[in-house]
Amino acid sequence: MKIDHSNSMNIDVEGVRSLCTKILVGTGVPEPDAMAVVDNLVQADLRGIGSHGISRMFAYCQRIQDQMIDLAPDIRVIKETGSTLLVDGDNGLGAVVGIKAMDLCIKKAKESGMASCAVRNGNHFGFAAYYAMRALPQDMIGMAFTNAPPTMAPWGSITPLLGTNPFCYAIPAGRHRPIVLDSATSVVARGKISLAEIENRPIPESWAMDDQGRPTTNATEALKGTVLPFGSYKGSGISMMIDIFCALLGGAQFGGHLGNLYNNSETHQELGFFFSVIDIKSFSDPGIFKARIDQMIDEIKNSEKAHGVDEIFVPGEIEFNNEAENLIKGIEIGPGVLKDLNTLRERYGIDVNPSDYIKIQ
Amino acid sequence: MKIDHSNSMNIDVEGVRSLCTKILVGTGVPEPDAMAVVDNLVQADLRGIGSHGISRMFAYCQRIQDQMIDLAPDIRVIKETGSTLLVDGDNGLGAVVGIKAMDLCIKKAKESGMASCAVRNGNHFGFAAYYAMRALPQDMIGMAFTNAPPTMAPWGSITPLLGTNPFCYAIPAGRHRPIVLDSATSVVARGKISLAEIENRPIPESWAMDDQGRPTTNATEALKGTVLPFGSYKGSGISMMIDIFCALLGGAQFGGHLGNLYNNSETHQELGFFFSVIDIKSFSDPGIFKARIDQMIDEIKNSEKAHGVDEIFVPGEIEFNNEAENLIKGIEIGPGVLKDLNTLRERYGIDVNPSDYIKIQ
Repeated sequence: MKIDHSNSMNIDVEGVRSLCTKILVGTGVPEPDAMAVVDNLVQADLRGIGSHGISRMFAYCQRIQDQMIDLAPDIRVIKETGSTLLVDGDNGLGAVVGIKAMDLCIKKAKESGMASCAVRNGNHFGFAAYYAMRALPQDMIGMAFTNAPPTMAPWGSITPLLGTNPFCYAIPAGRHRPIVLDSATSVVARGKISLAEIENRPIPESWAMDDQGRPTTNATEALKGTVLPFGSYKGSGISMMIDIFCALLGGAQFGGHLGNLYNNSETHQELGFFFSVIDIKSFSDPGIFKARIDQMIDEIKNSEKAHGVDEIFVPGEIEFNNEAENLIKGIEIGPGVLKDLNTLRERYGIDVNPSDYIKIQ
Repeated sequence: MKIDHSNSMNIDVEGVRSLCTKILVGTGVPEPDAMAVVDNLVQADLRGIGSHGISRMFAYCQRIQDQMIDLAPDIRVIKETGSTLLVDGDNGLGAVVGIKAMDLCIKKAKESGMASCAVRNGNHFGFAAYYAMRALPQDMIGMAFTNAPPTMAPWGSITPLLGTNPFCYAIPAGRHRPIVLDSATSVVARGKISLAEIENRPIPESWAMDDQGRPTTNATEALKGTVLPFGSYKGSGISMMIDIFCALLGGAQFGGHLGNLYNNSETHQELGFFFSVIDIKSFSDPGIFKARIDQMIDEIKNSEKAHGVDEIFVPGEIEFNNEAENLIKGIEIGPGVLKDLNTLRERYGIDVNPSDYIKIQ
């Protein structure tokens, strides 16, 4: 089926950043926290992953309005060793908690050589690379994981007992841009199905099953059913491991017990995050390491292309290209997301004119 | 095509352990080291992964005979921080180096909360779970990774610039057996193709491409070509990450620069390993953690089965079942591996009668 993008439009990055920040402040979020959350969402859109971008604003605001998020959380370290941290997010906004925990983990890795941080009582934190990439300017490798509400069945089952639990590894390079592998453990991120539902678009058959375990191209039916793990039993196993690291280690909820971001105004999400940071100089001179990463990138990009392939991309490269392009031409959003933004703008009485952020095509 | 297993036979575990140890001692390996290497190979066969079992004996002995392995290596820590170790394996046998490095990593994690160890100058270390599982009796999570000679093309390429670089996570449980996810980043471990070649069996078309980038069912052609990554670009990305952790961090060779275990008597392998260990008590009471792992296993195993599925297995469960069964009935090997063992037995003048290890069916 042909997908109709004719109603999509480009919006101004700084204009929409300002609008979304004001909306969140309108819900009661302190301004620095609102800026952090919106920075995460806008950066996702810039990188071309609209599934994790401002399309989430409506759900975030709904959760806040339903009093399911603590807007003045006491985010604190509740257990600590020489190289580990356990952080209680106190049900704060995911990005606010995630940034604080990752930065503590970077500090600990600087002291110890490497460090890991488990976070409990979290909420949806946006896209994982946002946190992992915070390690890059320090010549460190950053890793970020979160569990997610149950939407995927373990291999052999049709019961949703796993999330799409994403993993991200961010590796600094020298001449080249960093390598950033950020991936859901499902065939595609479930956010892409949510976005297809908002925009009323069909989805490919390989993405999901309906609630009877049958393949479906209907986004709404898919959201009621389960998404499929990538690489069959291997992706299913990796998703379990991420749940164990994010939740079973540090005391967050796991598997079928997690609260959903959508269609749920009675339970906290109680998500878990897991961050790891390796200080490169613990193992190697960072300059030498980054030169070797450059060499790896060059060798892969210059290797013989498969039939029909124009360019070989390393992980994260397409997202950096998108970002460079979208910073100029603006973020492309569909009419569903625009309608959501207008609803929120009116609901919170934000004095911003749509012409301030909608670019003329 | 029907695979003929009619010539496979069961061999006695302790008989073949003794035979293989004597063969390795015959090549000049000190007896404790020979026992360690053979324990790794035999345990792989017991767990049902014959691709990593005594089928490797012939290649190991050939490498030793070609003086490509240092039989008295000076395995030493060359860089150390509060939570990291860099170990030089000095071109020793993979299992000997791997055991020593993993045990140092476990000790460091006990002091620091968690730890990681990169190893350079390594050789083929057998199956990864052997190392990761050493953390389990200490109530620790063990992780083990190795890079491997280039046999897989990065996504979009047909040039072999990645190994099948496996990953393993071993998680202690309470009532249940541990969860052990041990997987190659290819659709199947390349060892399964090597075993198919030894046993002259065809392989499924989804496993590999020939050296022209075409699908093939011929094991020999596949071994000249490239294996396919699991989960398409995601498995390719994970394989790159493992190469970075195992090799680019600590100074081992990487990608297309690694030496092969087979068909190569002139260059060292120069593999890299990466081990990580998390002391569970850094985050949680180990008893509570293991009870939660039990709960996760129960919930997954008791969930609704997909059509045609008799039992849902968690990662590692099938291997533990195989081990329990094979300890009684013996290890099943094909005529190719048996012929190799007989050749080695004669070459090194080992005074063992085949009736000591071949069980009557």
